[in-house]
Amino acid sequence: MTDALFLVPAVPESGRYRLDGAEGHHAADVVRLRAGETLLLGDGAGTVADCVVTAVARGVLDVEVTRYRRLPAREPRLVVAQALAKGDRGELAVQTMTEVGVDEIVPWQAARSVVRWQGDRGARSLARWRITAREAAKQSRRAFLPTVADPVGTAALAARLAGASAYVLHEDADTPLATAPVPSTGTVLLVVGPEGGVAPEELTAFETAGATPVRLGPEVLRTSTAGVAALAVLSAATGRWH
Amino acid sequence: MTDALFLVPAVPESGRYRLDGAEGHHAADVVRLRAGETLLLGDGAGTVADCVVTAVARGVLDVEVTRYRRLPAREPRLVVAQALAKGDRGELAVQTMTEVGVDEIVPWQAARSVVRWQGDRGARSLARWRITAREAAKQSRRAFLPTVADPVGTAALAARLAGASAYVLHEDADTPLATAPVPSTGTVLLVVGPEGGVAPEELTAFETAGATPVRLGPEVLRTSTAGVAALAVLSAATGRWH
Repeated sequence: MTDALFLVPAVPESGRYRLDGAEGHHAADVVRLRAGETLLLGDGAGTVADCVVTAVARGVLDVEVTRYRRLPAREPRLVVAQALAKGDRGELAVQTMTEVGVDEIVPWQAARSVVRWQGDRGARSLARWRITAREAAKQSRRAFLPTVADPVGTAALAARLAGASAYVLHEDADTPLATAPVPSTGTVLLVVGPEGGVAPEELTAFETAGATPVRLGPEVLRTSTAGVAALAVLSAATGRWH
Repeated sequence: MTDALFLVPAVPESGRYRLDGAEGHHAADVVRLRAGETLLLGDGAGTVADCVVTAVARGVLDVEVTRYRRLPAREPRLVVAQALAKGDRGELAVQTMTEVGVDEIVPWQAARSVVRWQGDRGARSLARWRITAREAAKQSRRAFLPTVADPVGTAALAARLAGASAYVLHEDADTPLATAPVPSTGTVLLVVGPEGGVAPEELTAFETAGATPVRLGPEVLRTSTAGVAALAVLSAATGRWH
């Protein structure tokens, strides 16, 4: 099994390091790592160190670095605008998209999103998406943490799509994502609608901004499944998973 | 939005049809379809009829067929052996894999599966997977219902892989699934291990049976995410999503 990953502000290049705080508590008291066992330290920005545990106390681990790596960011950068979804479907989408390598998630307040992120409740929902992304990134041992942007409305999202390599998942689209030309460098943006679908006026705004409507297969996918499936197709097509 | 799909034993080619029983209750009392609205009737074996509602009573809908279609089964047939997973992870895997079009799911009692399907509890778990697959197939408007096979151990699974186009997801594999040669006809079998991974002796058994170890990307995926991501790659690569 792959070693567990713990996030630190700066990864030591060599020598000893003391892991404490929330990550030390998690490693020592929850995962219960013991002297001689191995773990990964990462800064979430591409730097990772393999370490061996030299001593453990309650909430604190001492480790020794055995290998230090700076990994290049993968291309293309994959950004998903994920429509707000009800219940835990939004968090499930964030979790699974993080597992398959999304680089940035943009919460999108779509016309047909049943939930509205407003006031304190909206702030708490955004915080939960960010915690979910961080936890899923640790779970999948990602060298780069994905970011969860501030939520946007349709106009702001359309502005962001303009001039980019952008695709909108839409069940009536003629072009399959599997055969769409997708650049293997730069940034690729993907829009995933809410359970009720992308509204016609939203689709028009995105197409006007230059985005291409694409579909997956004939199945109707839940919003929490569409993003992860599309990211898998893109990761295979662009060479990120080669 | 796509019309809701209801499952019936035999789809009428034309004329009127009375939808009652559990599906009638769902259509009339839960989805609350009204006269003039449209729905789909399917037999789960490739036959689908577009219908318009002509009358509604409590638990019963009368519909008129407006279009009748027999769809061909898509190739290749995609079969996933899904390791039993704890909590609701198994059902989540069944749900998302059904959404992206899996044709058959084989529950696999892997060495490192934390749960054991034994006795009444095992029977209930299997029943839940079957209900989950049926509900997800309706949700995604699938013309063909996937089947959930009886659970198998490693020896029986290895026997089933022998002579087939079989792939085992394994994080240490050299071959990316994205570049592996996959046939576009016949049956493709994919093995998805439990949270603890495929055990070395299991990998040996599957390789001896002729299966190819493959990986997705560098990320470590949960068992409930690996199958849906791999199916998306396979659906794009084999042309099912063209």
